Amino acid sequence: MTDNKKQTIVALDAEGVILPEIWIAVAEATGIAELTRTTRDEPDYDILMKSRLAILDKHGITIDKIQAVIAELTPLDGAKAFLDELRSITQLVILSDTFEQFAQPLVKQLDWPTIFCHQLHIEGKRIADYQLRIADPKRKAVKAFQSLNYTVIAAGDSYNDTTMLEAADTGFLFRAPANVQQEFEHLPHYESYSDLLSAIKENI
Amino acid sequence: MTDNKKQTIVALDAEGVILPEIWIAVAEATGIAELTRTTRDEPDYDILMKSRLAILDKHGITIDKIQAVIAELTPLDGAKAFLDELRSITQLVILSDTFEQFAQPLVKQLDWPTIFCHQLHIEGKRIADYQLRIADPKRKAVKAFQSLNYTVIAAGDSYNDTTMLEAADTGFLFRAPANVQQEFEHLPHYESYSDLLSAIKENI
Repeated sequence: MTDNKKQTIVALDAEGVILPEIWIAVAEATGIAELTRTTRDEPDYDILMKSRLAILDKHGITIDKIQAVIAELTPLDGAKAFLDELRSITQLVILSDTFEQFAQPLVKQLDWPTIFCHQLHIEGKRIADYQLRIADPKRKAVKAFQSLNYTVIAAGDSYNDTTMLEAADTGFLFRAPANVQQEFEHLPHYESYSDLLSAIKENI
Repeated sequence: MTDNKKQTIVALDAEGVILPEIWIAVAEATGIAELTRTTRDEPDYDILMKSRLAILDKHGITIDKIQAVIAELTPLDGAKAFLDELRSITQLVILSDTFEQFAQPLVKQLDWPTIFCHQLHIEGKRIADYQLRIADPKRKAVKAFQSLNYTVIAAGDSYNDTTMLEAADTGFLFRAPANVQQEFEHLPHYESYSDLLSAIKENI
């Protein structure tokens, strides 16, 4: 056999990269200001999530209602065309810390790319609880793909992406806030899908 | 957190399950009878593949020509609707022993589900060689998904699927030949997409 490149898979963050920030969009769409709190306001994720679910309960927002709200959202401008081209040249898995039930109405608009994320526990139509699939899921997925002899190219925008970006064979920041760019200045940073796509193509 | 089910991913074989047998279809479409030889005729896969590539060379069939032939093929009847529904309810990765460049024109017709397979080495437009990504790729992919805390449901039709089916949390045969059904009679066997989909839904 000739000495050729390994096969490639792209691991892509969802919110901020191809999808809007779902909780913030839901807060805006429902007019429930309390839902705009994030881990910047409440660093304990479990406390934050429990309070979010209590807020949903208080306002009678069941899973069908929140999915209807999310179905009115759209992927970020240009994300669909970016993913269509990306999926025509390499493999793609979305790695996200959102929940399958929240992602579903948005992922549908992108023609169902595979997404590894977490899940909500639904009782009837009530969102009873949430369940994280695994700790440090993005980095572990990258390592799993590498164990299958894939070269992994990863892109994300946030702190929760950086273990994935560091574990990947190539890691890119995309539309990251200034503090993340500064702290991870060794990672190339892109603002446009065309620049990110070009950088990915150079590494395939 | 409530004690709830784990998240699920479906691992699906391609040829014979959602796609036609690509080499046989190419042999028929090109009229090159020698290409109909399979591992049943030549059990040494490397000898078989080398002879296939030599036949392509002899007939001047470059990668663009073979992709044009494959683009005229279609997924199996009903496969697109089956995958569309499957992708709306769980995650899906196709696990195949074909090559990315052969799968591409067919996977496009299915809206780019993620596929883990092998690759061809292309020099100019000539298919110079092939490269298996890893040994026992299907079983290893199933184990990798399980290591990410997924429950894996797998379905396939051939001997090369059986290590994947045995490693999965749930394994199904789909349109398997009689000898495979007999040897693996502990695996449920389905002939229709609706029956397979029902069985998958019962395990999600």
